[in-house]
Amino acid sequence: MKIREAKQSDFNQIWKFFKTIIEAGESYPYPSNMSKEEAEAEWMMPPKRVFVASKNEQIVGTYYIKPNQPGRGAHVCNCGYMVSSSAQGRGIATKLCEDSQKKAVALGFKAMQFNLVVSTNEVALHLWSKLGFERVGRLPKAFLHAGKGYVDAFVMYKWLEK
Amino acid sequence: MKIREAKQSDFNQIWKFFKTIIEAGESYPYPSNMSKEEAEAEWMMPPKRVFVASKNEQIVGTYYIKPNQPGRGAHVCNCGYMVSSSAQGRGIATKLCEDSQKKAVALGFKAMQFNLVVSTNEVALHLWSKLGFERVGRLPKAFLHAGKGYVDAFVMYKWLEK
Repeated sequence: MKIREAKQSDFNQIWKFFKTIIEAGESYPYPSNMSKEEAEAEWMMPPKRVFVASKNEQIVGTYYIKPNQPGRGAHVCNCGYMVSSSAQGRGIATKLCEDSQKKAVALGFKAMQFNLVVSTNEVALHLWSKLGFERVGRLPKAFLHAGKGYVDAFVMYKWLEK
Repeated sequence: MKIREAKQSDFNQIWKFFKTIIEAGESYPYPSNMSKEEAEAEWMMPPKRVFVASKNEQIVGTYYIKPNQPGRGAHVCNCGYMVSSSAQGRGIATKLCEDSQKKAVALGFKAMQFNLVVSTNEVALHLWSKLGFERVGRLPKAFLHAGKGYVDAFVMYKWLEK
């Protein structure tokens, strides 16, 4: 598996699993009925830097990295990750997150923050914990889960600089 | 004092205290050297709705309100407030925050979240607590304070719906 910077044309492949993920409505806030054009604008828009994981020219995952705040908060980055359901269970999310942490340091970021980790998304919570992120906040009923209604979400944070 | 929706031309007056606030570098992440044009684009840009407090045609404070997240997180709004230093100590921030909570409910929001309340900003922390916001998270060294270097910031949150 290779991780490289995304080209705009990669979104055609990204959209296949992006669509599945937002239709499920269990992890990302993006509305389930978002169009491909809206999703592309959201995911690929600068100042986001976007990367893809590919295997035999097939894109199996993607992440973005961007400053979470302007100026005096711009040393903290924010990332989002998506993995194709057909490629799950192979540690791709782990590799994407590890890669994003290296890229973050190389880009001069000092910390990484996830703003809305859904409390019912146990796979993500477990994974981010394992990769060194702490739950630094809990947002009551901040996420409208497709199946469960309003559920809490966590803010997770990791200081990257040694 | 009257609170009304801002017109684009109001930013000429807003900029006077906006500039002072960002130059101090103690409360907002906006870079201290932001130009008026950048500040106007940041503060007045849709989907933000912007309001001003005026007294005798003089603008003494402003706030914005916007969804803090898209879609499944869009029931939580985010607001930012600024008050002219020449008008401080008269309860204007309190009035702006109370007004924003009413507007938020009228606009259909169910909760309000502040993403980066600087831990050294005791006036703000005290005020938001008094107005019903809880510290739901602490972000280690997430704010680069002009005088104190990296300091923690709080996430504060209030459920508005009864």
